[in-house]
Amino acid sequence: MIRFGVIGYGYWGPNIVRNFEACDGSKVTMICDGRTVALKRAEKTYPQIQTVSDCSEILNSPDIDAVAIVTPVSTHYELAKKALLNGKHVFVEKPFTATVAQAEELIDLAEKKNLKIMVDHTFLFTGAVMKIKELLDDQTLGDVYYYDSTRVNLGLFQHDVNVIWDLAPHDFSIMDYVLRESPEAVAATGQSHVSKFENVAYVTVYLSNNTIAHFNVNWLSPVKVRSTLIGGEKKMLVWNDVDVDEKIKIYDKGIDVKNREGIYDLLVSYRSGDIWTPRVNPTEALKLEAEYFLDCIENNKSPHNDGHAGLRVVKLLEACDKSLKKQGQMVKV
Amino acid sequence: MIRFGVIGYGYWGPNIVRNFEACDGSKVTMICDGRTVALKRAEKTYPQIQTVSDCSEILNSPDIDAVAIVTPVSTHYELAKKALLNGKHVFVEKPFTATVAQAEELIDLAEKKNLKIMVDHTFLFTGAVMKIKELLDDQTLGDVYYYDSTRVNLGLFQHDVNVIWDLAPHDFSIMDYVLRESPEAVAATGQSHVSKFENVAYVTVYLSNNTIAHFNVNWLSPVKVRSTLIGGEKKMLVWNDVDVDEKIKIYDKGIDVKNREGIYDLLVSYRSGDIWTPRVNPTEALKLEAEYFLDCIENNKSPHNDGHAGLRVVKLLEACDKSLKKQGQMVKV
Amino acid sequence: MIRFGVIGYGYWGPNIVRNFEACDGSKVTMICDGRTVALKRAEKTYPQIQTVSDCSEILNSPDIDAVAIVTPVSTHYELAKKALLNGKHVFVEKPFTATVAQAEELIDLAEKKNLKIMVDHTFLFTGAVMKIKELLDDQTLGDVYYYDSTRVNLGLFQHDVNVIWDLAPHDFSIMDYVLRESPEAVAATGQSHVSKFENVAYVTVYLSNNTIAHFNVNWLSPVKVRSTLIGGEKKMLVWNDVDVDEKIKIYDKGIDVKNREGIYDLLVSYRSGDIWTPRVNPTEALKLEAEYFLDCIENNKSPHNDGHAGLRVVKLLEACDKSLKKQGQMVKV
Amino acid sequence: MIRFGVIGYGYWGPNIVRNFEACDGSKVTMICDGRTVALKRAEKTYPQIQTVSDCSEILNSPDIDAVAIVTPVSTHYELAKKALLNGKHVFVEKPFTATVAQAEELIDLAEKKNLKIMVDHTFLFTGAVMKIKELLDDQTLGDVYYYDSTRVNLGLFQHDVNVIWDLAPHDFSIMDYVLRESPEAVAATGQSHVSKFENVAYVTVYLSNNTIAHFNVNWLSPVKVRSTLIGGEKKMLVWNDVDVDEKIKIYDKGIDVKNREGIYDLLVSYRSGDIWTPRVNPTEALKLEAEYFLDCIENNKSPHNDGHAGLRVVKLLEACDKSLKKQGQMVKV
Repeated sequence: MIRFGVIGYGYWGPNIVRNFEACDGSKVTMICDGRTVALKRAEKTYPQIQTVSDCSEILNSPDIDAVAIVTPVSTHYELAKKALLNGKHVFVEKPFTATVAQAEELIDLAEKKNLKIMVDHTFLFTGAVMKIKELLDDQTLGDVYYYDSTRVNLGLFQHDVNVIWDLAPHDFSIMDYVLRESPEAVAATGQSHVSKFENVAYVTVYLSNNTIAHFNVNWLSPVKVRSTLIGGEKKMLVWNDVDVDEKIKIYDKGIDVKNREGIYDLLVSYRSGDIWTPRVNPTEALKLEAEYFLDCIENNKSPHNDGHAGLRVVKLLEACDKSLKKQGQMVKV
Repeated sequence: MIRFGVIGYGYWGPNIVRNFEACDGSKVTMICDGRTVALKRAEKTYPQIQTVSDCSEILNSPDIDAVAIVTPVSTHYELAKKALLNGKHVFVEKPFTATVAQAEELIDLAEKKNLKIMVDHTFLFTGAVMKIKELLDDQTLGDVYYYDSTRVNLGLFQHDVNVIWDLAPHDFSIMDYVLRESPEAVAATGQSHVSKFENVAYVTVYLSNNTIAHFNVNWLSPVKVRSTLIGGEKKMLVWNDVDVDEKIKIYDKGIDVKNREGIYDLLVSYRSGDIWTPRVNPTEALKLEAEYFLDCIENNKSPHNDGHAGLRVVKLLEACDKSLKKQGQMVKV
Repeated sequence: MIRFGVIGYGYWGPNIVRNFEACDGSKVTMICDGRTVALKRAEKTYPQIQTVSDCSEILNSPDIDAVAIVTPVSTHYELAKKALLNGKHVFVEKPFTATVAQAEELIDLAEKKNLKIMVDHTFLFTGAVMKIKELLDDQTLGDVYYYDSTRVNLGLFQHDVNVIWDLAPHDFSIMDYVLRESPEAVAATGQSHVSKFENVAYVTVYLSNNTIAHFNVNWLSPVKVRSTLIGGEKKMLVWNDVDVDEKIKIYDKGIDVKNREGIYDLLVSYRSGDIWTPRVNPTEALKLEAEYFLDCIENNKSPHNDGHAGLRVVKLLEACDKSLKKQGQMVKV
Repeated sequence: MIRFGVIGYGYWGPNIVRNFEACDGSKVTMICDGRTVALKRAEKTYPQIQTVSDCSEILNSPDIDAVAIVTPVSTHYELAKKALLNGKHVFVEKPFTATVAQAEELIDLAEKKNLKIMVDHTFLFTGAVMKIKELLDDQTLGDVYYYDSTRVNLGLFQHDVNVIWDLAPHDFSIMDYVLRESPEAVAATGQSHVSKFENVAYVTVYLSNNTIAHFNVNWLSPVKVRSTLIGGEKKMLVWNDVDVDEKIKIYDKGIDVKNREGIYDLLVSYRSGDIWTPRVNPTEALKLEAEYFLDCIENNKSPHNDGHAGLRVVKLLEACDKSLKKQGQMVKV
């Protein structure tokens, strides 16, 4: 039985508590939040769990095996470091850390202490992303030409990060997981209208193998769009996450290119066939992720969304910031 | 009665002929195309119109008042120049010319000869764009924060230009018309997978007044998307051109920002109200544009989609090419 | 403080408990269910509420002011009668009773004892229905020509009633509430494929004032449809309840009819204007309904969804059964 | 070369002319219409075709092999009879005739003279219906439980027939073609608001094999709906004809029913699997139908949409009228 302390009980914390509480192999023994109102909510729902306002009680407790860090990114490094130093596994919200250097230090520390880090890239455990991963791994789409994602809505303005740090970690972690290509360079543009942080931004990522990826993130859209197009050599895929019943469609559509011998011209012919909408696993993603974390701890396995995966996302975020400052100039990753 | 010669009878030419033929104030007297099969099609539908394979017959004919140039962009300058030198008005496909210098020369020439140039930015005459223009002019949306356009589908690969030159002129001309802001800089990224020309590309345009515009163009998308979001200070607009009945929606949605006195924090509150879907004029855009061209000729008026408007679009296109070559670096317009 | 006993803790019961528990003016003091597993669920979520397996403990308790009956329709009459005889207000699931006679008896009994009956026509408290009611009351649509409802999906087969008794009470109660017209006759057709009860059925209701209503209910549809069209003389309305953001659209569309003098022909002209999508109140319907029930009890007001409203729905259901047996023949209500 | 005379050049006539003109094996030699403006339109588009205002010129011409009758239903019988008596094949608009007796007489006459009758059930030649036919014929859906069709919009009010005669022939002919079940009885309800003819109507058709079919037709809907659900034992199908790219979806969804031995209860389990959206043939239906008619004439084959198919539709229409008069009572077919 893995005993968890959960630090942070705001918007997402309750989901973390509920899922680790529901797993057979874990329970939550302590919840920490600096706000009295948050602790009262926790106590009402979970009278059996101890609540504290000082997180050192969790970090120092000998009765806690793993710490879930559900706080703003600026605090991740400090909290995770203490947890690791005190011999606790770490489950930490995305983005992993505020800098590449912090991520690298935490990874080293965990390895030395033989502890697990899992970065909460929840989307990787949705039925949709698991299906996309499967379709890319088995070459159903063939080589990927482009990955084009839009994640916009009238969103909660964050006070300490721009819209890229808020929304793009979802998409960066998904792209990293399903494509398994190495980013080579990043170009980011954006604009701020309300605070000093960009509230609309566009990111291009150049990947190995001639693949291009693009991310449109925006806190000021009147409509909620969560869509990703993946154009492959053989087939193309559209993932529309706001559609309840038809999240993923695979199009038997594309072009066939022939180089006519001896001459300059290309011969491009167009293909248009059936559409296939696979059923996706409707299980709550966080439930699967929680079970996976326990499995990794118990069997000493390295999770695919470990510190290294978190680091790859932070590298992209840092590169975006650099490119934004250089007005869109390409930055090597 | 304005007498037209139409050069080019491929995909778009027949629409040009049909509309200038249908106008009360004009008729088409000659059609030119180098391909016999195209001329045969023209003869079958319009037995009364003369067909020729050599365009100098049109350009030199004393019985022709205006020339419609419906050919690849590389030929526009040459044809338009000859037409103007021979005293003929010019109606020319978008993009206006292949270079800024060509556009400027044609504008000068037309002004000297007191002839009209109209660049066929057809979309400006659709009910949807006319309605958007109206809503922006009367400040229904308030100041514009961003203009975000997506124009993708499994499209005809062009053999002589990239996807920006093929698709973005539509959106550049619409943005130019409805926003009336000056572009200050452009950053473009893209990738080519099939030929040497980019088939997927992303363009950011920085406009005066802190407005950002973005254009997503792609010849390799399995789904056809034609959508534009305009985020204003007061209201927001979504234009979905593939929707037959509800092309434009205006959202009474947004944020209200207050700077709390004496302190650093922003107070952002969210607004969510009704949606309004105005009926748009269903008249064929090219019909209205043809009538407008005749009106400009007859009454010696300058069309809003004149050579200068065409030039503004070509300037953006040239800047895109430069930015692409510099791997996304920002280029001043 | 009104003290509730809730009988039935299956699919819907937990929502009833949660909402009466959350209201300031009420609390739930006892939950009854015959199934041990249901009681365990209740105890886990609400350790402070007493659970019982024999409903007479609720019906006889002197500490309970009101009883919520969340059980199959066949049991409603018996339970409600006992509750009323013991001086308790009654909140009862739809449909109110299994027969018209039962409903009438309960209404009489409640009136004699000055107790309230509220039939849980939850949909009447949704933002969508409240908005439709408003638009019909203020004559925005004008006189209503037709009311056309579709409520189909791959639904839970009921073992004791047909699909009309399961799904149509929603729509009958909504029509009753928003139109306020008297049904004059009913014609119902249907078919059973799995059990002896119809799993697909079609109901036409003829209303006063030349209005026709139609209901399509089906447990065997692959897609979930919840849509209602209301055609008015002045405007038309579409309510699509599965759309999250645009539930109600009002179309400025219709026909204008003129009788040309002295001749037989009609002159019909078509109107096509804007669409308006009003924002609807997103508050949980059951919360509003619970508060309304408390208000009716405390201030001795008659709820609009009282026993009489429940009776009107049961009358339609009985008429449907008669018409089904007579193979679609019209049955007077 | 089959020479056609076309009677009626209003809304649909031009499509008939265009398609028989385009076929290799046929040409149109005469067009008749009583309205001068219609003839002028015909002459402008087809200067080579003779136009006449008196249809006896077509019916009596020795140079015409086949007559296309594109006029109101009340005139079909008279015109078709004369054409057949004069030895001409007949292509006639739907519905075939105004009465069952007329249809039977024409069928007899054609058989005696060894001439072909084709009733223009155009929808049978669309890619969508051909695909549905294929899926039902090969038992992909299994036995059919129900066929549920909706065909509504703000439609042209007909002055001589009700909405069933106007819209339902499409759906009756499709159902007849794809299901190949015998209708046993019909129940129809409806209402008229504008003229004496019903403008909204609902038809239930009981078919052999326990299948139920239902048709919702309405001239007064603000939205255009063209959708058909077919619920089969194995799979279910939705045909949405207003969707450009995804007209047909096949759902691997349904229920599995087991009778548990020795006990009364049913055991119903639910299935939910993938969706498949087959590509459908985009060829213009009328083109395929025209070619098929020529093929039937040349090779002396009986078309599947012959007089008998037309008669089956007229039988349903007559039964609807009877049921409407008897206020929805079931009428045997």
